Amino acid sequence: MHSRRDFLQKVSLGLGAAALSAFPAIANELTSNRQDKQLRVAIMGLGGYANIVAKGMQECKMAKIVGVISGTPSKIETWKKQYDIPDKNTYNYETVSQIKNNPDIDLVYVITPNSLHHKHVLQIAAAGKHVICEKPVADNAKQAREMIAACEKANVKFYIGYRLHFEPHTLELIRMREAGEFGKIMHVNNYAGFKIGDPTQWRLKKSLAGGGAMMDVGVYSLNGARYCTGEEPIWVTAQESKTDPVKFKEVDETITFQLGFPSGIIANCGCTYNFNHVEGLKLMGEKGWAEVNPAFGYGPIRGTTHKGKLEAPDVNHQANQMDGIADCILNNKPDPNVTGHEGLKDMVVIDAVYESIRKNGAKIFINK
Amino acid sequence: MHSRRDFLQKVSLGLGAAALSAFPAIANELTSNRQDKQLRVAIMGLGGYANIVAKGMQECKMAKIVGVISGTPSKIETWKKQYDIPDKNTYNYETVSQIKNNPDIDLVYVITPNSLHHKHVLQIAAAGKHVICEKPVADNAKQAREMIAACEKANVKFYIGYRLHFEPHTLELIRMREAGEFGKIMHVNNYAGFKIGDPTQWRLKKSLAGGGAMMDVGVYSLNGARYCTGEEPIWVTAQESKTDPVKFKEVDETITFQLGFPSGIIANCGCTYNFNHVEGLKLMGEKGWAEVNPAFGYGPIRGTTHKGKLEAPDVNHQANQMDGIADCILNNKPDPNVTGHEGLKDMVVIDAVYESIRKNGAKIFINK
Repeated sequence: MHSRRDFLQKVSLGLGAAALSAFPAIANELTSNRQDKQLRVAIMGLGGYANIVAKGMQECKMAKIVGVISGTPSKIETWKKQYDIPDKNTYNYETVSQIKNNPDIDLVYVITPNSLHHKHVLQIAAAGKHVICEKPVADNAKQAREMIAACEKANVKFYIGYRLHFEPHTLELIRMREAGEFGKIMHVNNYAGFKIGDPTQWRLKKSLAGGGAMMDVGVYSLNGARYCTGEEPIWVTAQESKTDPVKFKEVDETITFQLGFPSGIIANCGCTYNFNHVEGLKLMGEKGWAEVNPAFGYGPIRGTTHKGKLEAPDVNHQANQMDGIADCILNNKPDPNVTGHEGLKDMVVIDAVYESIRKNGAKIFINK
Repeated sequence: MHSRRDFLQKVSLGLGAAALSAFPAIANELTSNRQDKQLRVAIMGLGGYANIVAKGMQECKMAKIVGVISGTPSKIETWKKQYDIPDKNTYNYETVSQIKNNPDIDLVYVITPNSLHHKHVLQIAAAGKHVICEKPVADNAKQAREMIAACEKANVKFYIGYRLHFEPHTLELIRMREAGEFGKIMHVNNYAGFKIGDPTQWRLKKSLAGGGAMMDVGVYSLNGARYCTGEEPIWVTAQESKTDPVKFKEVDETITFQLGFPSGIIANCGCTYNFNHVEGLKLMGEKGWAEVNPAFGYGPIRGTTHKGKLEAPDVNHQANQMDGIADCILNNKPDPNVTGHEGLKDMVVIDAVYESIRKNGAKIFINK
């Protein structure tokens, strides 16, 4: 692999455009036409989480917000003032394809409702910009595969907003597991969820959210089970409960699901939109254990293992994630475990969760 | 209901045997022919747990060990010395039916391997003695129904060794739930298990244990789910994992199972014989929550709720259970939730757990 430092050295040595074609990732005009080491990001969809990302990004060293895409003119005005965004870097959903002509935007972070991810990532890829898409990657694995193919065809990077794969406590847990400190992993028990508020919000509409608790927070239990084990599930079973069929008319309220892994581990997981005090990650190994709680939220992650407190620095999750992704792109480092392919692996399981529920809990085998 | 105090008053008032027939439970010759308020217990099966029960019973106020039934003469000798048991109160499995002629034994506590419970409870009922049977009540619900019928026919009491239904922290949790302090219960997540040792022990033999972790410790998760919710499950799903097919050739190693309750609660449970650091009971309600750990062991039960520490006295579980049962029998109090019918309810679910596993996780509906 060639780092951006190598590339910059070659440029300074007087190598021309022809030589650059030997470094296709580096040669991408999006990132090679400047030397300030700041990834220039536009945010697409200016809802609640976009505000958290933007606020966090004020701490970024290698990424900055330079543009916005929104269907709400008043939001664009607010963001322009708040983040010093020039008019020429603002788009709505009708004009977004023109972003391809804007050399001042490197990457678009898609934070629109879940069911729009597929359409929007395809648009951004077609515009030749790198893209980060919030989780869940899409409504289903078929869409995720199309999104990956579109980004590969366009030669743009495609990341999922898996911020915990940059979070130090989570990385320490994974390091301990990989180092064998827990011994052989025997079981995982992960939960994510909360009691959702406003009954009119998009998360409760099937056409925008694709699904309910499973899509939005179940993906934490699921992704956590995969990084707790270091394995990919071979079977899935799932069960659903709906205690409030009015509020949760369109989407799932509470789902429990089990993942069977090749070594025999079962991860027994759950997610909900209808009660609190549920979050937690538990890992039981032959030689040790870990309990992490909070495990998935935006605030400080806290955990205990058989060795004591899970020690790692607290960071701003969003700033940390964006600097991590910027570092990969700008410095041509290997991508961490947050690409579209990682998102697809979770979507395959989510598809199987819903299939198992439709089939009354039947075991769904996952074919790789 | 008439208490034993009422009864004793009537006796002292000179009421004769004819009057006593109005109080059939009291009139039972097993308990009415003396006034010392000590339930006289024989232990059947002198293995590890029998020793724990006997040791605990040294603290009992209302029950005492007076006899033993064992197939191992050397164990009988040891117990005779240790608990001052007369020769005439000792039996082996061939002579046990003669216990019917022994007026000095009120009740037999069956602590033999699971698969012998059915045969032994039928023998004790036929001998006209009250009986406590360790959990799990039997190998399956059919056997449990036969045991209940036999005890009813013989007009003897039939209890299961559900010691936690006498344990103060557990009772406080149930009291809080019944008082509505948790609000509507939304979810339960219970685990019980441990890494089992000696691979030659009876618990790993199907013909003696009836099953593995589910039979022995899964019943804690399951019974706990029922007392956490105050409801009876209407469906069951279950999944099995076997990572050590040599040690667990005959019985289940790790099982996860889900119980669906009429109100929509899912209890997501697990049990194992192959890892530690797993025990815990979690209850999530609309207004509060509880986490209990240890929740099922013989030592002090410890818990936290949304109100703080789960406060209750620590007791010797076995002494407390035996005094509680003795109090019911001697004082003709209403039976607590530890009768054969309670054991049957758990066995019906255990049958469904194994059926779901045989059917690849399919939802098994329980018909009342």
